Amino acid sequence: MQVDRSRLEAFSDGVFAVAITLLALNLIVARPGRDDTLLHQLGTHWPVFVAYLISFFMIGIVWVNHHALVRGIAVVDRTLLFLNLVLLLFVVMIPWATATVANYLAAYLAPHGSYADRDTQIAMMLYGAVFLGMSLGFGAMFEWTLHGEHMYRRLPIDKRWAARARFVGGAVVYVIAIVIAQFYAVASFVIIALVAVYYVFERTPGAYQAPAGDAPADAGGPDGPDAS
Amino acid sequence: MQVDRSRLEAFSDGVFAVAITLLALNLIVARPGRDDTLLHQLGTHWPVFVAYLISFFMIGIVWVNHHALVRGIAVVDRTLLFLNLVLLLFVVMIPWATATVANYLAAYLAPHGSYADRDTQIAMMLYGAVFLGMSLGFGAMFEWTLHGEHMYRRLPIDKRWAARARFVGGAVVYVIAIVIAQFYAVASFVIIALVAVYYVFERTPGAYQAPAGDAPADAGGPDGPDAS
Amino acid sequence: MQVDRSRLEAFSDGVFAVAITLLALNLIVARPGRDDTLLHQLGTHWPVFVAYLISFFMIGIVWVNHHALVRGIAVVDRTLLFLNLVLLLFVVMIPWATATVANYLAAYLAPHGSYADRDTQIAMMLYGAVFLGMSLGFGAMFEWTLHGEHMYRRLPIDKRWAARARFVGGAVVYVIAIVIAQFYAVASFVIIALVAVYYVFERTPGAYQAPAGDAPADAGGPDGPDAS
Amino acid sequence: MQVDRSRLEAFSDGVFAVAITLLALNLIVARPGRDDTLLHQLGTHWPVFVAYLISFFMIGIVWVNHHALVRGIAVVDRTLLFLNLVLLLFVVMIPWATATVANYLAAYLAPHGSYADRDTQIAMMLYGAVFLGMSLGFGAMFEWTLHGEHMYRRLPIDKRWAARARFVGGAVVYVIAIVIAQFYAVASFVIIALVAVYYVFERTPGAYQAPAGDAPADAGGPDGPDAS
Repeated sequence: MQVDRSRLEAFSDGVFAVAITLLALNLIVARPGRDDTLLHQLGTHWPVFVAYLISFFMIGIVWVNHHALVRGIAVVDRTLLFLNLVLLLFVVMIPWATATVANYLAAYLAPHGSYADRDTQIAMMLYGAVFLGMSLGFGAMFEWTLHGEHMYRRLPIDKRWAARARFVGGAVVYVIAIVIAQFYAVASFVIIALVAVYYVFERTPGAYQAPAGDAPADAGGPDGPDAS
Repeated sequence: MQVDRSRLEAFSDGVFAVAITLLALNLIVARPGRDDTLLHQLGTHWPVFVAYLISFFMIGIVWVNHHALVRGIAVVDRTLLFLNLVLLLFVVMIPWATATVANYLAAYLAPHGSYADRDTQIAMMLYGAVFLGMSLGFGAMFEWTLHGEHMYRRLPIDKRWAARARFVGGAVVYVIAIVIAQFYAVASFVIIALVAVYYVFERTPGAYQAPAGDAPADAGGPDGPDAS
Repeated sequence: MQVDRSRLEAFSDGVFAVAITLLALNLIVARPGRDDTLLHQLGTHWPVFVAYLISFFMIGIVWVNHHALVRGIAVVDRTLLFLNLVLLLFVVMIPWATATVANYLAAYLAPHGSYADRDTQIAMMLYGAVFLGMSLGFGAMFEWTLHGEHMYRRLPIDKRWAARARFVGGAVVYVIAIVIAQFYAVASFVIIALVAVYYVFERTPGAYQAPAGDAPADAGGPDGPDAS
Repeated sequence: MQVDRSRLEAFSDGVFAVAITLLALNLIVARPGRDDTLLHQLGTHWPVFVAYLISFFMIGIVWVNHHALVRGIAVVDRTLLFLNLVLLLFVVMIPWATATVANYLAAYLAPHGSYADRDTQIAMMLYGAVFLGMSLGFGAMFEWTLHGEHMYRRLPIDKRWAARARFVGGAVVYVIAIVIAQFYAVASFVIIALVAVYYVFERTPGAYQAPAGDAPADAGGPDGPDAS
């Protein structure tokens, strides 16, 4: 039975690893011979680096959560494989959405940028939409774990809404970011950045989450002692 | 014995993961400074996104089937490794074929597109041919599993034709799509898209296929109970 | 102990998988709007596709041999990790060497190509040199396995020269191809292609090689029965 | 418990493998039709190849050390996953920093290069800064292993400073290289190259390091006999 889950993990880990590494292809490779000095190029393109940071940790966080969710799965069926593909469909689009929003933001924020901000708003909406899709894909996988005998140990009913709140919370913030992007692209970008910061530092012990501090992440997992 | 199969799986999973992620490199990274607005660029290039979706799920489906087939293999020989390389040869070409067909379709379908449709037809034939090659490679691996003592449990004779019908069925549809592409590129593209949709939702319990619904995918696998 | 070998395998498999998939980035992505028709572009660039095929199977073959060699390793030390990095250093350069030789060969062989053939010869020498480096890296790993207590079972002395002959044989052919490339680039390309064809179909049972036919590849491996 | 560590390893190995392979995308793919001959192009771009070698072995060395450190980890918590992401954040930036420094160095060192050396100095500082970040990320993971019950066997107090000295030593050299880059870009490049050479040949038996020679790398690991 482990065989199935291990290949699901191996394939997903591969996609996460390639997507997170391709993010760096968006970084400008400044070349001598342009009019600009290197420092000026880096200065003008700072949104590219900020977007790289945000997207890197977003993919990293989804990987951590994917890992925590899949660890407890006892039975892999075709529905799960399909839901996992939907999640990965959006993960794979992150480098593209990151490059798009970074390029438009850099042009928009440049000192003498004459670029129409409508395009920046749309690029920002795309960026939020990819994260929303990823969030919904992950939420669908979570719902799948609540049905039938899919898990080694089903999440108790009273803990489900707390767990859902975390996923739904993320999705709601992405929807808000998409709506705000219609009016203020930069504000929307800041919201997405704050989501990334929040998830990195968030340590609420929750369903499928490791307790804070030094406690083992796999408490509650199929191989460890049950802490829940 | 597991060692051999596990490296076959690890290498193949790596190739599947990289190929599926490289698909996103085909997505246009709209840059400010072009004449077009971002929305117009996205609108003109919609076939790029449709082709991305189709190819993403095609690779995903082959990964699922590869996983189901390889799971039951007891003995890895050089013939299998070679057949697996043939399968991967075509998988690796999918991002290229996808980019080619998407670019020509986008030019062909653009409002004032003046592009010769002969090229679009040929690009579509290439796209179908890569899927045909992938299908034949997979079929060859399946035939290999029927001989000698390669599997933990050989597929019963009476189930072989049903299993073959599924593989051969796909190959026949790809041949039809290639022939139609000679005359109607768009119709051929729709056929390939329908194949992808069919395989995603198809749930016929079959050889090496998980039963529908909540039943485990690994029923019948070497590590699980035998459901066949 | 398995832990060490398994990470060596996982990292190497990842590098092999990425390198083999990046080969496809060399395939031309014909775009509408060029002067050429698609068919003409494909026709002019046929060496790109031949070089793709050769390099794909070359990487595939090295992966198979790497897998066969590493399978028997009991003890991983820093020397082995370093030799493995040297092997991978050349594997990673294959997509670049392939692209270089394919571009120059295509220009050289084009009907009205006016390109200086000296460059084609040098590109061909680079291509051969990368395979030679890969071959020497693999040979060094093989020599490592003969010393100390590195393997589960050391190769008997009387079989070593036969095994070496296979590695050294490949290296000698690459040296010949490099020398010939100085005068006839196309002849050198044909020789490299024949090496790839030879290794794909070669079935001599040898050290670390699976016997031909249906016999298991892992005979003689640490987990299987000893056939040697 | 192994499950957690194995996915941490799989994801990290994937990122290392993709990053090390993407390095080769920096190699120039000389194309016919430029003014230059191929030999001249290769001659002018030699810093590209030297930078490729340095960065390749730097990533390889970090992989070896990561592997040695993670092997002894008994308990994976969110802090470790986050620190690992920080390490990977810098690993993923190596291909970009390598390309940047190589391009500026090549322009700076070209016979008739008229390029302002200030940019080359800044590119060199970036290159050193990425290695410094990687070194600090690794150091943070090492410190994590000293606390609580994270490891199968905690490093004895008296060996900690020796182990730290190795990490801190690297970081100090990177700081020196960054400072020197302000004045002499080439000298800084040579220092980084010497660090790579040192780490490749360094064989001091140390904490989490395999003893030199034929002794097993996993001595002291959780699965092997304790040699420390």
